[in-house]
Amino acid sequence: MRKWEVVDVLRHYRHDWLNKLQLIKGNLDIGRIEKVEGLIQEVIQQSKNESDLSNLNSQKLAERLLTFNWEEHPYVLFYEILTEDKNWGPIESRVMGILNHIFLLFDSHAKYGYDNQLIVILKDVDGAELELDYHGQLLLNDNWHSDLENFQKQYANVIRKIEWDENGLFLNIHF
Amino acid sequence: MRKWEVVDVLRHYRHDWLNKLQLIKGNLDIGRIEKVEGLIQEVIQQSKNESDLSNLNSQKLAERLLTFNWEEHPYVLFYEILTEDKNWGPIESRVMGILNHIFLLFDSHAKYGYDNQLIVILKDVDGAELELDYHGQLLLNDNWHSDLENFQKQYANVIRKIEWDENGLFLNIHF
Repeated sequence: MRKWEVVDVLRHYRHDWLNKLQLIKGNLDIGRIEKVEGLIQEVIQQSKNESDLSNLNSQKLAERLLTFNWEEHPYVLFYEILTEDKNWGPIESRVMGILNHIFLLFDSHAKYGYDNQLIVILKDVDGAELELDYHGQLLLNDNWHSDLENFQKQYANVIRKIEWDENGLFLNIHF
Repeated sequence: MRKWEVVDVLRHYRHDWLNKLQLIKGNLDIGRIEKVEGLIQEVIQQSKNESDLSNLNSQKLAERLLTFNWEEHPYVLFYEILTEDKNWGPIESRVMGILNHIFLLFDSHAKYGYDNQLIVILKDVDGAELELDYHGQLLLNDNWHSDLENFQKQYANVIRKIEWDENGLFLNIHF
């Protein structure tokens, strides 16, 4: 996990925002006002999601997810925050432990060059819950099977559901 | 000088961007397309300025200026980067020293509740140069005179020009 410099954090985040603004500008230039309005709404929604993530009393977890796509990974991370309680502090290190394990798993087994996506959902509507949904190409060699077995053994007490094939993986965890 | 957490940096910067986007959205909603285009152009220009500041090989200086307005000060900071050489590394600590001195001076003497602005210009077209332009209300008590005298004495060898009255201060420094 990288130790971030403020200037680099701002550089990456500025780049992300400029991309969104260019998309808005491009559609404005050709008069697609409705599309522009939709894009602005999307950006506001995404910011709300980032803001919710930042307000879980779990700075390290938030930093990890907010900066993840600025590192090199064979998949893109998306996340969604569906929380009411908003205090993930007490379980933060456990959530981080499981997430880092999963990130390593997909770093090893997601196939480079494909449009791979990992969606992470944090919920606490009915107890704290972590949902992971990977869509994309997976390299299903012997290591995959042993890595996954290890993962399942290590977190057997919290895994509620796990399903996978060569095109994806779904995982549900209750803390 | 504050030690920034990544999550807080992103929180502030996101807030700044959302403000700009809300302004764009507001003008779009009432059909002022030309105004929207102008605002987008401004944001792109401002981002270019931030990016230039971040590429001076002076991370600490860039961090100081980029995060300054997120701290509490009785004036707003603006900066402009007019550089060709782009390597301010060798003089970074001297520039930081002078800037921090000036920031403290205005922290003490800018009057709260007024629309005070401090503009910092970094130039290296004809040698490295720092230009400061303060517009706003100043508290010209005895301390001001002695503080300014100290400042002028300490940096006598680099100050090329200094002018001030109760509504502002102009300062030019050559390194």
